[in-house]
Order: sequence, then structure tokens, then C-alpha cells
Amino acid sequence: MRYLITIEYNGKNYSGWQNQKNALSIQQILEEKLSFLLKEDIKIYGSGRTDSGVHAVNQKAHFDTNSGIQMHKIPLAVNTMLPKDIRIKGIEKKDKDFHALYSAKRKIYLYKFYVSRISSPIRDDYYAQVIPPIDFEIMKKGGAMLTGEHDFKAFCSARSGIKNTVRTIHRIELEQKNDEIFLEIEGNGFLYNMVRIIAGALVFLGKGKLSLEDIKQALETGDRKKAGKTFPARALYLKDVIYD
Amino acid sequence: MRYLITIEYNGKNYSGWQNQKNALSIQQILEEKLSFLLKEDIKIYGSGRTDSGVHAVNQKAHFDTNSGIQMHKIPLAVNTMLPKDIRIKGIEKKDKDFHALYSAKRKIYLYKFYVSRISSPIRDDYYAQVIPPIDFEIMKKGGAMLTGEHDFKAFCSARSGIKNTVRTIHRIELEQKNDEIFLEIEGNGFLYNMVRIIAGALVFLGKGKLSLEDIKQALETGDRKKAGKTFPARALYLKDVIYD
Repeated sequence: MRYLITIEYNGKNYSGWQNQKNALSIQQILEEKLSFLLKEDIKIYGSGRTDSGVHAVNQKAHFDTNSGIQMHKIPLAVNTMLPKDIRIKGIEKKDKDFHALYSAKRKIYLYKFYVSRISSPIRDDYYAQVIPPIDFEIMKKGGAMLTGEHDFKAFCSARSGIKNTVRTIHRIELEQKNDEIFLEIEGNGFLYNMVRIIAGALVFLGKGKLSLEDIKQALETGDRKKAGKTFPARALYLKDVIYD
Repeated sequence: MRYLITIEYNGKNYSGWQNQKNALSIQQILEEKLSFLLKEDIKIYGSGRTDSGVHAVNQKAHFDTNSGIQMHKIPLAVNTMLPKDIRIKGIEKKDKDFHALYSAKRKIYLYKFYVSRISSPIRDDYYAQVIPPIDFEIMKKGGAMLTGEHDFKAFCSARSGIKNTVRTIHRIELEQKNDEIFLEIEGNGFLYNMVRIIAGALVFLGKGKLSLEDIKQALETGDRKKAGKTFPARALYLKDVIYD
């Protein structure tokens, strides 16, 4: 049987989604607990990695099991074993040709900022700080410029080593609420650090440290230096993964 | 010179606002840093205590100093010395007859819930969980019943030892947003654990574990047992203190 699970996690205490040597990953913990419950070696396949410190509201992952356990009992049983910063929120049966990574059509990420000269002790763990003033309208123009199919080479970490850096961003939404800004990005795939680099580029635009021309140049030349700074992981949330 | 400061803090790592033996308080840290900066023994007077783990968006406190330092330099200078979970957000000059506690006319508290069968790793540090279903309308009726001048003896911790338990609640607002509930309470003063007990009583109402008749009885008899359970500190925020 192949199952797809929906997972929420607080990334603060983890090295990220994916298994790594000498570091605690969310995948590893889930595999351990599922293997213990189902009494067989379970390998899970996520919809993709999230960096160290990044949170997920709805990460998706699939696994196969021969266990005859009733499906709806799995989340509750595993949740009682999991640390409180990881929870399985849902489970559904899938066909053998479904794959959490390869069947994913789109992903939605959310990035949270607060705009304040003084850092905010209550929000510091889950938001990035932006020093005012910030031009919100130019940030929206930058978002519109990045929307569509582009080579996002300038918007990914050099460490990624990936060849094809063309991706489609279907939607970039920026919303202002009191002293907070929410950036939501929906795309067909994201490069290493791409959302955190876009978050940084849009803030640099809003602060006048980058111009719309710089963003255009970054897209055209693929020059990482034209796209500003990578923003912190703690303000980034994998909000959803969309399948057909 | 008497100064009033506005402080934001994340209560997670502290024993509360007020100085205590063998425990780290926010007041103590602020007094240490202000004393160091102003080169004299500074004693600060808060608008009131907050319990261990309770947060403040806008706590208020005053202190006297003979230092000739320019007022507007104090927040920045102290903030660079403070741990990142405490920040001075503002400062203003006050007359000698002003007192952060005795001059306070009203206080506003915010309590945050999320309604979900499964606990939420991302919100767990800052919200209280409520298991669905919950009757939001009866919670609002309970809030209306508690509004006004009442003897809140049933809504304070027995440990308080205070004599006069009559207080006026000017406003109780309950707002539902997606799967979250926000409870805002404005009153002329609050007893020990009062907001956390009201939060618990309203949830017990919504869950059918208490009736409106129980709330009425709790107000009339002062019987703590009629008012449900004290809800956790981590979901409580001192939002503002109002002076004339």
C-alpha cells in the first residue's frame, strides 16, 4: 500500500527535512517512528527538501507498507511518539504510480516579515525583520516581474549545482497587515534557497538597495550578486504542495 | 527625571515580570542594564506583574534617574545590551506624580487559541489548543456575561490572597479567523491568573463542560470550581496599558 501523509513541523530544532549525516532531520524521525509502528523498514519520500530552520504547514510525503494496520490509525499512533514540533495531520491512500516529489504539480511558500526599527521579541522566532521605511508598491512591481517562466539562476544558491534553473512562478502575492508583510509564492518548482533569495530581493527593492532594472538584469544575466541577500530560514513556511 | 518606558518581551524563558529569588525576571534584567547604562542604582516600577511564560506586546514601567543622558538614547543603548527576547520600544518623560502601576486606568490582554484536533507545531509556543467542535456563539454570550463590574473571586487563583476581588471588565471581544480564536479583554484591573481563568471558562462553555448558568453561579458564589480550568501562560499577551 502507498500512503501520502501531510505533515506540519516547526523547523527550528532541525537540520531540515532531508536525512543527513550527524544532524537531526524531520524525515529521519518520521521514518523511525513509522518503522517502529509498522514493524518494517519504512522509507519516506518527501515532496522536496526544506532547509534547516524552515517550517512546513503542509509538507507531503509518501511511503509504502505491507502492514495491515487501518490507515486512519497511523497519524494518531505516530503523533503520540513524535516530538511536539512534528505532527502528521492527514493520510490518504495513493496508487503505486503516485510519487510525493515527481507527482507534485505546484508548491506554495509563505514568507513573513515585520516592519519595525526595533526587533520584536514575540515575532523574532518566526518572522524576518525589515527596517522602515519600505516601499511596498515597488515590492509588488518586483513580484510581478518575477512571475512567469524565467531562468532563476540568479535566485538560487551557488551551492545547488543544478543544471536547469528555469522555473515557472504562477503567483507572487504581497499583503500588508498592520506592521507585517506576507509574501506568498506559488510555483512549479523551487531552486535551492530560491524563496529566501526572492524575499531578500523584494526587500532590497523596497529599501532602494536594488532597482527594478537590477531585478531585470538578474533574470537576464543569472548573476546572483544582482539579486540581493538570502533572507533567514525561520520566516519561511512550506504552505502547501499541489497534486492533480 | 521620571521616565515611562514601553517594553515588548517574549515570556518563554522568564519567571515573569517581577523580581523573585532564584529565578530570572524581566524586571531584574532591565534594572541591571539601566543601572549599568545610567551609572546609578535604577529601580523600575511596572504596570503590574505578568506570570511566568506570559508575553507582553506593550508592558509599561517607570523609573527615576539623575543621569543627564538624552532620553531618546536610552532605548537604543539598553537594547544593544538586552537579550533578544526583551526590547524597549519607547520612552517618554513623566511628572513625579505619575506611577506606572497606580496611574494605570485600564489594561488590555490578548489570548490566542487555535481550534484543531491535532496540535500545531508552528503555533504551539504561542497559542493554546482547543479541540473541535467549539460553540463560538455561546463563548460570546459568556463574554458578555462577564463584562461589567463583578466580583471576580471565582476567576482568580486562590494563591492571590487579595481581599477586594471586584473589578470592571469594559470589553470582551472574541474574534474567529480561519481556525484561530482571539480573545481580547479590557479592564480596570486584573486579579492573579484572571485572564487565563476567563480563557479557560469560555472554552469550557464552548465545549459544553460549563453552562451559562455555571458562569452566573461562579460570579454570584465566588466558587473557583465553577469557572473551569486555568489556561496556559504561553498564549497570553499583555497588549497595552492605558493612562490618562
